Amino acid sequence: MISKKNILILDTISRLYRRRAIQPLKKVLAKTHPTDLARILSRMPEDEGYDIFFLIPQAARSAEVLSELEPELRDRILRETAVEKLRPMLEKLSPDDLTDLIGDQDPQLAARLLEGLGSESQQEVEDLLQYAPDTAGGIMTTEFFALPQDITVEQAIGSIREYSDVEMIFYLYVVDEEQHLQGVISLRQLLLARPEQKLREIMKTRVVKVHTSDDQEDVAALVEQYHILAVPVVDAENVLVGVITMDDIIDVIQDETTEDMLKMAGTDESELLTQSPLRIARVRLPWLFAAFAGGLMATGIVHHFEGLLSRVLALSAFLPIVMGMAGNVGVQSATVAVRGLATGHLDLGRIGDFVLKEFWVGLLLGLIYGGALGVVGWWIFNDTNLGLIVGLTIFGNMSGAAVIAIILPILFQKMGSDPAIATGPFVTTSIDILGVANYFLIASFFLGLHAPAA
Amino acid sequence: MISKKNILILDTISRLYRRRAIQPLKKVLAKTHPTDLARILSRMPEDEGYDIFFLIPQAARSAEVLSELEPELRDRILRETAVEKLRPMLEKLSPDDLTDLIGDQDPQLAARLLEGLGSESQQEVEDLLQYAPDTAGGIMTTEFFALPQDITVEQAIGSIREYSDVEMIFYLYVVDEEQHLQGVISLRQLLLARPEQKLREIMKTRVVKVHTSDDQEDVAALVEQYHILAVPVVDAENVLVGVITMDDIIDVIQDETTEDMLKMAGTDESELLTQSPLRIARVRLPWLFAAFAGGLMATGIVHHFEGLLSRVLALSAFLPIVMGMAGNVGVQSATVAVRGLATGHLDLGRIGDFVLKEFWVGLLLGLIYGGALGVVGWWIFNDTNLGLIVGLTIFGNMSGAAVIAIILPILFQKMGSDPAIATGPFVTTSIDILGVANYFLIASFFLGLHAPAA
Repeated sequence: MISKKNILILDTISRLYRRRAIQPLKKVLAKTHPTDLARILSRMPEDEGYDIFFLIPQAARSAEVLSELEPELRDRILRETAVEKLRPMLEKLSPDDLTDLIGDQDPQLAARLLEGLGSESQQEVEDLLQYAPDTAGGIMTTEFFALPQDITVEQAIGSIREYSDVEMIFYLYVVDEEQHLQGVISLRQLLLARPEQKLREIMKTRVVKVHTSDDQEDVAALVEQYHILAVPVVDAENVLVGVITMDDIIDVIQDETTEDMLKMAGTDESELLTQSPLRIARVRLPWLFAAFAGGLMATGIVHHFEGLLSRVLALSAFLPIVMGMAGNVGVQSATVAVRGLATGHLDLGRIGDFVLKEFWVGLLLGLIYGGALGVVGWWIFNDTNLGLIVGLTIFGNMSGAAVIAIILPILFQKMGSDPAIATGPFVTTSIDILGVANYFLIASFFLGLHAPAA
Repeated sequence: MISKKNILILDTISRLYRRRAIQPLKKVLAKTHPTDLARILSRMPEDEGYDIFFLIPQAARSAEVLSELEPELRDRILRETAVEKLRPMLEKLSPDDLTDLIGDQDPQLAARLLEGLGSESQQEVEDLLQYAPDTAGGIMTTEFFALPQDITVEQAIGSIREYSDVEMIFYLYVVDEEQHLQGVISLRQLLLARPEQKLREIMKTRVVKVHTSDDQEDVAALVEQYHILAVPVVDAENVLVGVITMDDIIDVIQDETTEDMLKMAGTDESELLTQSPLRIARVRLPWLFAAFAGGLMATGIVHHFEGLLSRVLALSAFLPIVMGMAGNVGVQSATVAVRGLATGHLDLGRIGDFVLKEFWVGLLLGLIYGGALGVVGWWIFNDTNLGLIVGLTIFGNMSGAAVIAIILPILFQKMGSDPAIATGPFVTTSIDILGVANYFLIASFFLGLHAPAA
């Protein structure tokens, strides 16, 4: 998405660039917000964006733009530029952003970029690369503000003045001599304290914190629950090693949701990283195989009942609606389950209530639409049996689908798997198979159990 | 979800309550984090939770717990308690939380609560109630910190000291005599400035801000883009009227996502507000009607081709897989579209590329699975025509489904509607209908156009 304001800036930048009006162009680049610049450059023809990127004044600004560019242009810049030229801007990035940037590249380029960094940044990135990307360690930054507990408020303010590198300080962490986390002070408390007070006297000692190995989803849930703007990360010995800020948390929440939604649809987030239809097809292929295999089973079931079908051809006419209605109520229940589990709305301690509720919902909807289809079947085909069969099938399949769709995601969650995956291939396919089977069993019952082939 | 730690506290609280050990109980209530307390009380038998709520020491703490309780217990407390008893805690709530709480109640109770408040809170709530709930005005708080531009840093710090009511101050907003927003200063800048400097000298004048009527989704996108922790809200005259903080933004993001997911599934978020299966069924009923009507159309199509079916019964056997495969690839493409539009990943200026890409993905997947099913059809039924028919159908339906599923959400977005709704009933149903029609048209072509009825 690009805003109207940004389209205007884009036009200006393009025009100035084509006229080679470098000085006015640099002025515009210096005045535009880095986030906007990143979106604008990503929208330009790649060669143009590439050239203009290097006209941005100030390494700190280029760094911010670089970290927000679309992957294609960004990776090209990293690939095709000498490391010496990149180094000043790379070192302006916060350690976590720098680590993400390097971690995303292929091993050879990553190694080359890493070598080109100063030894301090190199160390920071290597430390951060040890943590799995979806843990607290993987999303934290190592740039934070920690001070000893025995210094005074005045000394603390002096330190903040010196150490201007940390962006967005809102909390001050207090540690002992071995860097163990002891407390937290908000900038506001610091502002309100008397200059001669010791930090240990004004700090809050009950600190909400996480461990490096904690899952990023749990960290996000914690920050959401406790309404804190940043959370300190400690290692197994309670040594403060990093901080996670709210903007990282928002990224986590968005990423986890995208992951959930794509998995529910039977694909995964790796398809967003590529523009190549071939690669996207490759990502979706295995997920679709479950549907394919399930579809073949359903085909087998219908095939098995061909004798019945040949006697009452109208049975095939109802196949689409029989499958569609159960599938729809299944997706509804499964979505409620997956989203409920993700937001904590669905309490695993009250599963029974939840399943029962969905069962009743399915039953009610089945009753209504089963009744409706029964009437339609009887009315169009003027056949009481047919009306009964399709009505009962829809009734049974919708209530069954609701229950299957609520239980599978919960089961997956209990077993430690991702509930969203349950919905993708499993829920839909199993509902299709069971639904078709149920349909023909009910039909056999009403039309005579051992129908001879035509 | 309730953590293990909270289960332990719950047990302790329950035990103390049953033993009527009120003093120790109050101690536990005073020491537990309000967020945890809210979850614990919500998990208890309702009468117990109700009683214990009133044992919580301090109105500010009760207020925090109240605003985070599950709706059932919370509403019961509001309903069954004298307003005089509620007033101290209600007035401790931030104006936006108080407004949400009152706005959620039925009109009679809301009026009673409102009357019970002090005139200042009453005015604040009435002001906030004017804004639509999903706008910047609807989610902002009116409790913020604004100071005149001509006072000094020292005077500003003095004001902050006095005005300790505002939770989470991180930015200081600077206004002129008519309360027009002029600039912003972070607490950190204030800490680093010399005491005699004027605010106007150190403030940043280019402020990212929103208008009261801006859509909450746009506000969330802005905060996400610019990595700011709070955004000021102004009215049409640039008068500062409120502030939106990051924790409200996270709620917006979560709510909008839940809304998207539920709409894609063909239901809406109102089903989360009730425990009654009857009400949930009523929410889902109309959405399912689209599927029902579409299903009937598909039934009509199959019925129309019964002559063909009676000659080649095996055609019905492939109905489930023909429908399933197209439906699945459709859900994949639609999810990518809906999520891409929500996160800004899908750029409306580049729709052509996007549609083309999905078309190629559908084509490739259709080629693979169409080929596979063609072989299966030919092999199982030993019928070349049948293999060709089902193979071509899957190929055509999957590529068509991918295109329909990408175009419909984009069209809805362009027309100003919610793209998630497109996916719910429309995409699935239209893919079903077109898919079945295509299947029988291809079959007619290969098996002779005017097949006589058997």
